Amino acid sequence: MEVGRARQVLLEHEIFELVREDLHGVEIAIGIESFASSDSVTPILKYLEQNCGERLRAALLLLCVRFAGGGGRMAIQLGAVVELLHAAALVHKDVINVELTRRDAASANVQCVDCKCVLAGDWLYLQAFRVALQERVLHLAIDAAQMMVMGQLIQLNRIGSIDITEANCIEVVDYKTASLFSVCGKLGAVAAGGDSLAEEKLGEFGWNLGMAFQLSNDMLDFVSRKSTSGRPAGSDLTDGKVTLPLAYALEQANASERNLVADVLRDRSYDTVSFEDVQALVDRYDGIERTRARALQFTDRARQIVAEFPDSPWQRALYTLTDLVTECNC
Amino acid sequence: MEVGRARQVLLEHEIFELVREDLHGVEIAIGIESFASSDSVTPILKYLEQNCGERLRAALLLLCVRFAGGGGRMAIQLGAVVELLHAAALVHKDVINVELTRRDAASANVQCVDCKCVLAGDWLYLQAFRVALQERVLHLAIDAAQMMVMGQLIQLNRIGSIDITEANCIEVVDYKTASLFSVCGKLGAVAAGGDSLAEEKLGEFGWNLGMAFQLSNDMLDFVSRKSTSGRPAGSDLTDGKVTLPLAYALEQANASERNLVADVLRDRSYDTVSFEDVQALVDRYDGIERTRARALQFTDRARQIVAEFPDSPWQRALYTLTDLVTECNC
Repeated sequence: MEVGRARQVLLEHEIFELVREDLHGVEIAIGIESFASSDSVTPILKYLEQNCGERLRAALLLLCVRFAGGGGRMAIQLGAVVELLHAAALVHKDVINVELTRRDAASANVQCVDCKCVLAGDWLYLQAFRVALQERVLHLAIDAAQMMVMGQLIQLNRIGSIDITEANCIEVVDYKTASLFSVCGKLGAVAAGGDSLAEEKLGEFGWNLGMAFQLSNDMLDFVSRKSTSGRPAGSDLTDGKVTLPLAYALEQANASERNLVADVLRDRSYDTVSFEDVQALVDRYDGIERTRARALQFTDRARQIVAEFPDSPWQRALYTLTDLVTECNC
Repeated sequence: MEVGRARQVLLEHEIFELVREDLHGVEIAIGIESFASSDSVTPILKYLEQNCGERLRAALLLLCVRFAGGGGRMAIQLGAVVELLHAAALVHKDVINVELTRRDAASANVQCVDCKCVLAGDWLYLQAFRVALQERVLHLAIDAAQMMVMGQLIQLNRIGSIDITEANCIEVVDYKTASLFSVCGKLGAVAAGGDSLAEEKLGEFGWNLGMAFQLSNDMLDFVSRKSTSGRPAGSDLTDGKVTLPLAYALEQANASERNLVADVLRDRSYDTVSFEDVQALVDRYDGIERTRARALQFTDRARQIVAEFPDSPWQRALYTLTDLVTECNC
């Protein structure tokens, strides 16, 4: 294990240990909410289990609750809400990705969409809203869901396009990822009984963290063998998506370099142009470095917000979280 | 135009005329809710427009509001909620149907799923919940959505199965259709400021109406050239779904008759066994007559509920509605 990765595991352990019991409560809450109804929805649980390793959003929320001086049952319920929302968005995103891959593939040997996934995603959204309604935070849950759906729509409308600006990338990261992180922060304040200022501050903290987290994931797709999602490196581009590291490179690339990228977007594979060629292009124009700098602007802002509060173990945990998303991911 | 159809058009006109202005308000509310956000969701509007001819659920709700002595802005907003929910469920159902058809078809020349449909459905649900939250009826909207999703899941789990009982069919009709009709009745009472008894009564009225409506649609699939949805007759079976008229026939059918149905379920087409053969089988065992009798039990109950209230133009309209769903549909 390389040093960076070892440090990441240690930091993750340190943070998750602080909210271990509450996270266990979230698992139980998700299970109860999902099992509550009928045999027909049992297969849906597999989507939740597949994703159970992470629970980053619930952890963020629970840390924010403690940071704002709260705790207890409501925090756990809200942790379940954000994980259910995240799972719902993921399930529908998977349906779309499978569909796009199939349409682009010459071969018919592409995985089929499981029809149940459409309904499973619906079900997960509805369970999230049901709990959010009980806890009187439904407006925030709907906001987050609507932002995520909008983010996917915007990205879908740009699939295959090479004319993607920095602003385009930032917009998608905001909608698709940072909006839910922001709601995690806000819900943390709400569960802790904080005032509207605390809600605003923790929402802004979460938003900046989410921006940095997604940008790091976007970088990771260019530098590692496998991205965090377990997909092969370079998958964003073969999915037809130009993310920030490549968008920065394309700003300065010449016509023949742009053509390389256009080829991959057309083929949706690295058959004509190799992934190494694309990596070299990104490196040539400092795509990774510029994206990292952009991500650090977001974590700097996140740290500024945390610094406004008094020192506590929770404050240190939130600092560590900002380290985790940028320093170790890439 | 045949007599039955002419009478249907007249009755429809009579009923819809009573709530014409409010229905126009619903159209505007749906448009405003859908347009409110971003260019990216504009394509979604086509799903709402495609379905704008009917607005049966909004009309039911608006009639119930008037029947319970109410009217005004809230009624119109709630009309938008039920139509948005209905549209959301339809869009996701279409995604699933296209997917199932493609999987079963030997040829690759099957229509592609439009990826946007998954997100469009999500968006429509979310808009429905947003309005429902503003109007403080979100628990009812979530109930209806969850029942519809559950109904689709149950039906999906039984696709291609010939061992479908009467109880199975009634369960699916309940979840998939009657639950939303029930919520239309309840929301009518809520918008009119009615008490919990009025909510319960109108909910029961709506539920019975919805049961009869769906059973009539299921009959129509066997007796007409085109079902109300514009699909060719016999489509339920080639979609892998055994509905009540056929379930009744299968209760008494012999082995070779069951094999005919099994062939269609396997082929998902009338290539081996003709639709006329299936129609003859349904007729032989009075599948249509028995389903009609079952539907009339539901409308009888609906009429009983309406009869408990004093005479008014709205009472007569609700009676007419019960006539419409059974007498004219088949």
